[in-house]
Amino acid sequence: MQQQLQPPRAVGILGGMGPAAGADFVRLFVQACTAHLQQQGLPVHDQAYPEHWLVQLPMPDRSAALRADPQSPTGPAQHLLQGVGRMAALGVRSVALACNTAHAWHGQLQALFPQLHVLHIARQAALHLQAGGAQQAIVLATQGTYDSGLYDAALAECGITALQPDAQGRARLMQGIYDGVKQGDMDLAARCFGEVLAPLLQRHGDVPVIMGCTEIPLAMPQSPLARGAELVDPAWILAQALAGDAYGPVAIQ
Amino acid sequence: MQQQLQPPRAVGILGGMGPAAGADFVRLFVQACTAHLQQQGLPVHDQAYPEHWLVQLPMPDRSAALRADPQSPTGPAQHLLQGVGRMAALGVRSVALACNTAHAWHGQLQALFPQLHVLHIARQAALHLQAGGAQQAIVLATQGTYDSGLYDAALAECGITALQPDAQGRARLMQGIYDGVKQGDMDLAARCFGEVLAPLLQRHGDVPVIMGCTEIPLAMPQSPLARGAELVDPAWILAQALAGDAYGPVAIQ
Repeated sequence: MQQQLQPPRAVGILGGMGPAAGADFVRLFVQACTAHLQQQGLPVHDQAYPEHWLVQLPMPDRSAALRADPQSPTGPAQHLLQGVGRMAALGVRSVALACNTAHAWHGQLQALFPQLHVLHIARQAALHLQAGGAQQAIVLATQGTYDSGLYDAALAECGITALQPDAQGRARLMQGIYDGVKQGDMDLAARCFGEVLAPLLQRHGDVPVIMGCTEIPLAMPQSPLARGAELVDPAWILAQALAGDAYGPVAIQ
Repeated sequence: MQQQLQPPRAVGILGGMGPAAGADFVRLFVQACTAHLQQQGLPVHDQAYPEHWLVQLPMPDRSAALRADPQSPTGPAQHLLQGVGRMAALGVRSVALACNTAHAWHGQLQALFPQLHVLHIARQAALHLQAGGAQQAIVLATQGTYDSGLYDAALAECGITALQPDAQGRARLMQGIYDGVKQGDMDLAARCFGEVLAPLLQRHGDVPVIMGCTEIPLAMPQSPLARGAELVDPAWILAQALAGDAYGPVAIQ
């Protein structure tokens, strides 16, 4: 409890991927801080929140870069480094990336900035599921996230098997994300997401479902086919982990 | 239209007063950018949004400081200067303060940082009402905002008469803000706000209602007594002005 007596640490959020998801991540972070204060029995007032920064940078498309040249001098890697570098200059101690696919460059960012903790969304989600005793998890994500093996690796480290839709299901997910959520057609998105999820639940039974793209939680809960499923939002878990870093000891993972 | 061909300018948001309102202001700003792109017929994608920063600093209570010592070396003035100073170091060209009461220090901030534009929420709201031809406006705000004469002065500059509740009504507004919204009791808040608004509308007729505290829009629309009233949210007007600065020429006002 001693660290509660010290002022919380400054933390940062790297967004812009897309900007609406970044804005929503700040909301989740503030909510996670409120929950932390309440759980600790501490008074909730404006001054009890940690200093936190958000930067939303115009960021080249992550999935496209992963397929072409992940280290392109004009690609997202350079922009992510720019963003984290400026956060480091601000004295921020921990940074969260408000985009699943951007975590393909996580190792590179963490290696270049050892003075701060770059949280890892998939590892945080995997730790959360491990604590709940999960042995399998369905992963719904963008093609870019599947390509990078982000959740496969993180879940495997925690002894959890990642279950994924087949190629047809992945294409349908991308349709739900790009033609659905990104175009504001939530009905189409919910239909796509539900149609991919239903046969996976039928085949694998009642396993947790990782919504591994920040667009998926915006429509998935509206699908009747998702009713009763254990939907896991990694952005919410990441927001809680960032609040944990701000208020408590920073554990580099 | 020529400025559309240049990349948008970096802008900043100073929040933490409270943090939930600051997070919501980022959402409004992103929404204002989307609206701007659509109005200009420009494609909406992640890379079309301006670089923008949010800092939420633990900030001493503004209303209390205005009553005690507005220039206290440990008061909000110093923290606001710290926040704007770091924004200036980041290369931000315009800054919005996501708190009405904090505008009591606007002149001081703008004078110290002539290299950037510190937007003024009440002046933006007044310009908006002036463009709509208003001659009177009801102002609902905190006691601190009333004390500082923020809206009185800004509206007077635009030839608009500010109408305010009496002392009893002001006390009831504070109850709605502090015992209502800040404690999560939205029913109480809506009741308080509606009871203050109804006699003002009855006395003055159909005039615009400025919700001059970021907590008021969270409950006012739920009051049946506010139905049909022309509710004006200065935070939304400020978010649009900030988007205007990012995409277009900056006009210091």
